[in-house]
Amino acid sequence: MSEKRVPFSLEQVNALAKNHPTPFYIYDEENLRGNIRRLNDAFSWCEGFRNYFAVKACPNPEIMSILKEEGAGIDCSSMTELILSEALGFKGEEIMFTSNDTPLEEFQKAVEMGAVINLDDISHIQSLDNINYQGDFACFRYNPGNLRGGNAIIGEPVEAKYGVPDHTIVEAYQLMKDRGAKRFGLHTMLISNELNEDYFVETAEMIFELVKRISDVLNIQFEFVNLGGGIGIPYRPEEEAMDVKSIGERTQALHKQFIVDQGLKPLTVYLECGRFISGPSGYLVSKVRHVTEKYKKYVGLDACMTNLMRPALYGAYHHITVLGKEQEARNETYDVTGSLCENNDKFAINRNLPKVRPGDILAIHDAGAHGHAMGFNYNGTLRSAEFLMRTDGRFEMIRRAETARDYFATLNFPGNKWSVF
Amino acid sequence: MSEKRVPFSLEQVNALAKNHPTPFYIYDEENLRGNIRRLNDAFSWCEGFRNYFAVKACPNPEIMSILKEEGAGIDCSSMTELILSEALGFKGEEIMFTSNDTPLEEFQKAVEMGAVINLDDISHIQSLDNINYQGDFACFRYNPGNLRGGNAIIGEPVEAKYGVPDHTIVEAYQLMKDRGAKRFGLHTMLISNELNEDYFVETAEMIFELVKRISDVLNIQFEFVNLGGGIGIPYRPEEEAMDVKSIGERTQALHKQFIVDQGLKPLTVYLECGRFISGPSGYLVSKVRHVTEKYKKYVGLDACMTNLMRPALYGAYHHITVLGKEQEARNETYDVTGSLCENNDKFAINRNLPKVRPGDILAIHDAGAHGHAMGFNYNGTLRSAEFLMRTDGRFEMIRRAETARDYFATLNFPGNKWSVF
Repeated sequence: MSEKRVPFSLEQVNALAKNHPTPFYIYDEENLRGNIRRLNDAFSWCEGFRNYFAVKACPNPEIMSILKEEGAGIDCSSMTELILSEALGFKGEEIMFTSNDTPLEEFQKAVEMGAVINLDDISHIQSLDNINYQGDFACFRYNPGNLRGGNAIIGEPVEAKYGVPDHTIVEAYQLMKDRGAKRFGLHTMLISNELNEDYFVETAEMIFELVKRISDVLNIQFEFVNLGGGIGIPYRPEEEAMDVKSIGERTQALHKQFIVDQGLKPLTVYLECGRFISGPSGYLVSKVRHVTEKYKKYVGLDACMTNLMRPALYGAYHHITVLGKEQEARNETYDVTGSLCENNDKFAINRNLPKVRPGDILAIHDAGAHGHAMGFNYNGTLRSAEFLMRTDGRFEMIRRAETARDYFATLNFPGNKWSVF
Repeated sequence: MSEKRVPFSLEQVNALAKNHPTPFYIYDEENLRGNIRRLNDAFSWCEGFRNYFAVKACPNPEIMSILKEEGAGIDCSSMTELILSEALGFKGEEIMFTSNDTPLEEFQKAVEMGAVINLDDISHIQSLDNINYQGDFACFRYNPGNLRGGNAIIGEPVEAKYGVPDHTIVEAYQLMKDRGAKRFGLHTMLISNELNEDYFVETAEMIFELVKRISDVLNIQFEFVNLGGGIGIPYRPEEEAMDVKSIGERTQALHKQFIVDQGLKPLTVYLECGRFISGPSGYLVSKVRHVTEKYKKYVGLDACMTNLMRPALYGAYHHITVLGKEQEARNETYDVTGSLCENNDKFAINRNLPKVRPGDILAIHDAGAHGHAMGFNYNGTLRSAEFLMRTDGRFEMIRRAETARDYFATLNFPGNKWSVF
């Protein structure tokens, strides 16, 4: 098995760990910038292209600010994400608000910020009426249902809670047109972490055809399509990274065929990738507390599933490197666990690794998306710090570790009255 | 399908919701006290019996204090759980510290508090040496491995990260005896949420036989066995509650046969039930934001999987009552979802309910264990408040809701510098 490269050394981690106990996250600025630049390059043929970073993947202000410097927009789905984006200077249509089952106050906030409001459901039109929406924009999330049910890759859009079904999508735009909408966008997001390039091309074709259909019926012009995210990353060392250049070129050809050559306005393409951007740049770094043999061999870490839930929740694979032992043969087989009283608390099962000893430092790869963001406090565990490795090699703390006071902040007990601050 | 009773009314919730927006948890003090009393009664034959409440199920100080009043001990597995237990007045052997992959500072804290230290692994003896442990107590968690692998109920102890395997359990006690241990306990915990009474009786028999084996080889006397938790609750309305009285009686008979009649010291039986105690007493109360029809019918709540993760993580069933519609026929079929951008965010799939309308209040049952405790902040969501319904019907806030300030507390961005307080 080929080894996946780690951009920092054991010595660097040990220096950092002197002042900041493990576990912690490290993000690689160079990788982060490289990922967004690759995506921007792949779609540079498209005037106004923008990737709206799905902030739920990694809601850290420093990460968001770096992506802003690289021209990314931000995809928000909640009040706190809107507040944070506003504080970081994201403005107006740099923000896309894509939410489902949405409370009025979040629509209100997004409208006040001038964000592009992407409606998940035809009933959301009533929500806009309720907040007296005066904007001229109309954008809906489209769910093709069984129209794409034949493709095993896609999963089952018909089982998804998201989006406007095919049989009401025209009506949805009609209703907004009746309310005075003059600018139109169309969004879809059907899959997550997909590595088959054809899937994205098929989605682009589906959406471009839908644009033509709706435009013809309602005599409207679309300004943009948002093709969603879902571009996967190679979690396993034998997997290959997506060729986004090729996705960009094939999308361009379809854009010419279905939009430009059809005499439609040359609309802008947007994406909302999160994982593709921040996933590979993040590592969960953890120290080995103990190595033991029971009925199987176990490596017990100082991190646990509260730091990274994906293996427990999705059965996800995350590659593991034992720092300083990159060149050693993976001759041992371990379950790599955390310390929770919860049997799902395993980062890896039957994983081949070099011989591991207590005190070894492990880097768990591809933790930069839906990693710390899904952190929790089960068993009274505390969420960890995050560090950014700058392009010049400096490490900068971009989130402090939680303390017991944070954990107790919402409680009232002797010596701790709600911890109101 | 029979309806499960909810101890509070729609009117009561509406009154509460005037000042405290949904979603929130409500715990029923009467039910909570009833559960612990039933367990205490079932084992009242056993002098010194104690249920060590597994605090990870519901780490709320008010819940813990009520259980303390009822004579419960507390089962801790982390530093914050020890700190909280100490603040609430749990003392010495009222605390059992059962942890795996444990850092030294947590052993140190537990020893300082005089807790019963329950060792998960033979390597933990070295940890006690490292903190210069001077106590005279030795207790290990036992994992029978394949010795109980034939029973489909149990799962696979041989795949579990917990406990001392059968082939080293005698050696483990020998090593502690050599270090001067004079008091001995034995613990096991093999399963979670089990509704088959026979399983618990078989575990008791296994443990009593093991006590005899170790006692004979090492010439030691055990003071207690901790038979663990795992007593399930009837999440589904067609399931029946466990007959703990019967478990108690059958355990008593085995205790006589394998301990007393064998001339062994009449050791005390402990349990460490969490779910059985607090699970049925807790409800997640949530308001319907929208009801919509796509390819399926959806009820969208103001709660989401960040409030209650069990359905997404375990595929768990939680019964749902539409308050005020308890008597209506369940003629509609819905997916009941939250608002996350995460397709697992469903409390129920294809659930039969009365016709639901926006503004309806739903009570999600049996959320009092591993409910709020597993809460998280994905998509920037905030964890909810908890209320206790006192036996006199008053509602008392026992945890405040999180605010955006809590969510941002560990970050540094314009207008929010680490929120250090």
